[in-house]
Amino acid sequence: MLPTLHLQKDNALPLYWQIYWQLREAILAGQLPAGTRLPASRNLAKTVKVARVTVTQAYEQLQAEGYVVSHVGAGTFVADDVGLAKRESNAAPFHPVLSTWGERALAAQGKTGQSTRLQIDFGFGRSFPHIFPYNIWRRLLARYLSVDDVMLSRYGSTAGFMPLRQALADYLGRLRGVPCKPEQVVIVNGAQQALDILARLLLSQEDEVLVETPGYAAAFDLFRTHGAKLVSLPVDEEGFPVERIPANSRARLVFVTPSNQFPSGGTMPLARRLALLQWARQRDALIIEDDYDGELRYDGRPLTALQGLDEDGRVVYLGTFSKVLFPALRLSYVVLPPALITPFTQAKALVDRGAPTLTQAAVSDFITERHFERHLRHLRHSYGQRRQVLVEAVKRYLPDLVCRSNTAAGLHVMLYLPPHMDEAEVVRRATAVGVGIYPGAPYHLEWPSPPSILLGFSGLTEVEIEEGIQRLATTLAK
Amino acid sequence: MLPTLHLQKDNALPLYWQIYWQLREAILAGQLPAGTRLPASRNLAKTVKVARVTVTQAYEQLQAEGYVVSHVGAGTFVADDVGLAKRESNAAPFHPVLSTWGERALAAQGKTGQSTRLQIDFGFGRSFPHIFPYNIWRRLLARYLSVDDVMLSRYGSTAGFMPLRQALADYLGRLRGVPCKPEQVVIVNGAQQALDILARLLLSQEDEVLVETPGYAAAFDLFRTHGAKLVSLPVDEEGFPVERIPANSRARLVFVTPSNQFPSGGTMPLARRLALLQWARQRDALIIEDDYDGELRYDGRPLTALQGLDEDGRVVYLGTFSKVLFPALRLSYVVLPPALITPFTQAKALVDRGAPTLTQAAVSDFITERHFERHLRHLRHSYGQRRQVLVEAVKRYLPDLVCRSNTAAGLHVMLYLPPHMDEAEVVRRATAVGVGIYPGAPYHLEWPSPPSILLGFSGLTEVEIEEGIQRLATTLAK
Repeated sequence: MLPTLHLQKDNALPLYWQIYWQLREAILAGQLPAGTRLPASRNLAKTVKVARVTVTQAYEQLQAEGYVVSHVGAGTFVADDVGLAKRESNAAPFHPVLSTWGERALAAQGKTGQSTRLQIDFGFGRSFPHIFPYNIWRRLLARYLSVDDVMLSRYGSTAGFMPLRQALADYLGRLRGVPCKPEQVVIVNGAQQALDILARLLLSQEDEVLVETPGYAAAFDLFRTHGAKLVSLPVDEEGFPVERIPANSRARLVFVTPSNQFPSGGTMPLARRLALLQWARQRDALIIEDDYDGELRYDGRPLTALQGLDEDGRVVYLGTFSKVLFPALRLSYVVLPPALITPFTQAKALVDRGAPTLTQAAVSDFITERHFERHLRHLRHSYGQRRQVLVEAVKRYLPDLVCRSNTAAGLHVMLYLPPHMDEAEVVRRATAVGVGIYPGAPYHLEWPSPPSILLGFSGLTEVEIEEGIQRLATTLAK
Repeated sequence: MLPTLHLQKDNALPLYWQIYWQLREAILAGQLPAGTRLPASRNLAKTVKVARVTVTQAYEQLQAEGYVVSHVGAGTFVADDVGLAKRESNAAPFHPVLSTWGERALAAQGKTGQSTRLQIDFGFGRSFPHIFPYNIWRRLLARYLSVDDVMLSRYGSTAGFMPLRQALADYLGRLRGVPCKPEQVVIVNGAQQALDILARLLLSQEDEVLVETPGYAAAFDLFRTHGAKLVSLPVDEEGFPVERIPANSRARLVFVTPSNQFPSGGTMPLARRLALLQWARQRDALIIEDDYDGELRYDGRPLTALQGLDEDGRVVYLGTFSKVLFPALRLSYVVLPPALITPFTQAKALVDRGAPTLTQAAVSDFITERHFERHLRHLRHSYGQRRQVLVEAVKRYLPDLVCRSNTAAGLHVMLYLPPHMDEAEVVRRATAVGVGIYPGAPYHLEWPSPPSILLGFSGLTEVEIEEGIQRLATTLAK
C-alpha cells in the first residue's frame, strides 16, 4: 500500500526531505488513507537503503505538520483529518473580484518596456555607467558593512535616515533654492511613491487635478486610478500656461515640472511661477513640483525651484537620485510643507517601512563628503556635450524635425515631427535599422496628439548618438 | 537703493550665488521695485571686491530665472512681473483637506518607536549583527559595482530582478513547500507593501476581513484605512480557529500566520489548514499567508507552508528577508496565485518602480551560492540557544508568566501576565531598570485584552537575556 519511494542521493534535497515529501503527497492524494500504519522506521530504512535516522526525521516532519500521528509502542499512522484534502473536482480556480482602484490599476496603460535589443537605443532616464564613481560608492557601502555597526540590524526610520535628510536639507537650501528643515525631507522609494502617497492623502473621487500636456504619463495613470479627473493645459516654451487655467476650475491640486518641462523641455519663468502661486493661494490649492532633473542644466547653473518662492506652505517638492546617481538606486525624496509632514509620514509608515538604510547612509556620505557636487559637475559636462551632439546631428540630418525647447537641460530631447508623419511608423522604421526611439503619444493627453518622438542621450556615447541620427535620417528618407 | 551685499569668501556657497541670492531676496521683498536699474557689473564688482565675471554670473542667473531683464547697451533692470511676489499679508498658511483614506491613515496608531536608550532592549524583529556574514555581503555587492556592469544604469524590472525571482522560486519549492514559477514571485519593499497593494486591489468599503487576535497590528491599521471591517477570532495554541468562523461571515479575505502565529506563537496543524482552504473554496475567499519568520524553527525543520496545499490559486504567500538577513535591507517577496499576477504587477508599477537592483542581485547570488542556507543554519543555532536561555530564565525567575506556545520558533516570546497585573505598569517598571519590554495590548483586538508582554531575543547576547530577566523579576517583586 505504501508507494514506491524514489530517492536520489545526489539531489540538492536532503534524503529525509525526499521521503517526507513523497509520503506527504501520497497522503494528500488519498493513496494512504486515514489510519494507515506506516512501516516501522527501521524497516523502511532497510527497504530504501538509508540510515534509520533519516526515516525518523521524515516521520517527525510529517508528525509536526499533522500528516501522521504517533502512538508510543503502536507505531505511526496517517492522521484522521486528511480526508478533507480530497478536493471537489469541480471547484473553479480562484478569480479575484477587484476593487474600483484595482480595476483602474489593471486598465492603466503601464510602462511599456522596450524588450527588443537595439544596437543604438535612445532610451531615456538612463545614466551612463562610465561616469558614476563606482569605486567611491563601493568604499562608502563597505564603511557600513561591518559587524561593529548595529545600524543595519534594526529597522530604520520610516521617514528616512536622519543624516541623509540633514544632508539633503543643507544641499537643497544652498544650491537648489529649496529652503527647508530636515524634518520636512522624507526619503521615498522613487518619486512615483511620493506621488502615490500624495494622491491617496489628498484625492477624493471626481476631484480635478491640473496637469501639463505633454506630461508625465505615470502621474496621469496614478491620479486616474484614484478616481481624479485630469484637466490638462498644453504647455508652451515656458512650460505650464498658468494664465489659461479655466476660471471655473475646481482643481485643488496641480502637478507641474517648472525647471525642465517633462517631456517637452522649457522652463517656467518667474512671472508664471508667481502667478501659479497666487492662483494656488486664491483657490487654496496645493502644487506638486516635480524637479526630476533640475540639477542637469548645461548652459548655466541649475535654476532654483518654485518651492523657494512659496510663502505659505503649498508647494511639495519632489527630487530624485535616479537621474543624477543611477536609476537602479530607487531613492527619491520629497520636501513637504509643514502641514503635510505628519499625514505623509503616517501614510508612509502604513504602506511600507522606509527605504534601505545602507543605501541611504552611503548617499548621505556621498553628499556630505562633496562627491555629489563633483559628480554633478562631471555629469553636466558629459551630458551637456552629448546633448549638443544630438541637437546638432538632428539639425544637420533631420532638419524637418523641431525641438521646441531651447533649454539645454535634461537627459532627452523631444522632437516634433512634420504633421503628415506618422510617429508609430517612424518608430517602427527606426527599430528596423536597430535604433530605439520612443513615441510621444503616451505623454500627450490631447487626441490626436501632434506627432513627436523622444530621444534619450544619457546612455549613449557621442559616436553612437551621431550614428543613430544618421541611420534615422536614412530610413526616414526612404 | 541697492541693498548692501554681505559676501563671505570662505563660505561653501560660491560668491556669484551669494550675490544672486541677496539680489533675488531684495527683489522679492520689494526693496528693488520693477524697472530698477542694477549697477553695471564692472561697478558692482569694484564695490564688493570680486571679479567682474562673478557679478556677470549672478546677473545671468537672475536673468535666466526671470528676476531681471537685460537690454543691450542700456543695462540690467528688475523685471516687471515681480510685483506679484508681494503676498497678501492676510493669506492663511496651507492646510490640507485630506481624503477619507488620508483621514484614516492619520488616525492609525502607527508604529510607536522606542526612543529611550535602554541597556537591555528586548526589541523584536531585530537581527544580531555579529551573525550576518558582512564580508560575503560586501564581496557580492562589489561584484556589481563596476563600470563594466550597465545593469545599475537602467531602471530595473518592476516585478523584481529575474535571477532573484528564479532563485526564490527554486528555494521556496525545495525547502518551504511553496511550489511556484518565477513569474509568480514578485519582489516588494517589505511585506507591508505587499499587504498594501493587496488591500488596494481587493478591498472595497465595508468589506469584512478575517484576522487573528492577537495579530499583526500593522496589517490591522492597513485594512482599516481601506475602510474594511475587521472580524477577529482569538487564536489558541494551534493558531487561527477556523471552526469558529461565523457561519454568516461575508469575508472574502483572511489574513493568517500559520507557521508561527504572530505574536503569540503556535502552529496551525494540517487539519486546520485544510479546513481553512475548504472554507475559502466554499466562500470564494482569498487567504493571505504571512510567513514572516517561517525559516526560524529551532526544534526541527521549518514547517511547510499553507500555500503548498492550495490547489486552486487562493493563497498569497508573503515572505521576507528582514528577519533572516537584516531588517534594514527592506526586501520581501510575495508568491501570487496566477489570477493575481497581472493586477499585482500593474499596481506595483503604479505605486513605485521596483526595488533597488543592486540589493536584489546580491541577495540572488547569496541564495544561489548557498550562503543563504548556511546562514540559516547558523541563525537557527544561535537564535535557538538564545530562545532557550530566555524561556528557561523566565521559568526560573518569573514562574507566574505564561508562554502559551510551546513551539521553539521565531525571534520573540509572548508572555501572558497573571490577570491582576497591569501590563503598562510592568513595562514602566522594566524601563526604570533599563530593560525594554513591549506591551501586548496593541496586538489585541479584543478589549480589555489579557495582560501580556513581548520580548524579542534576537538582538541580545545570552548573558544580556539572563540579566534582563533577572532585573525584570527583581523590579516586579517589589
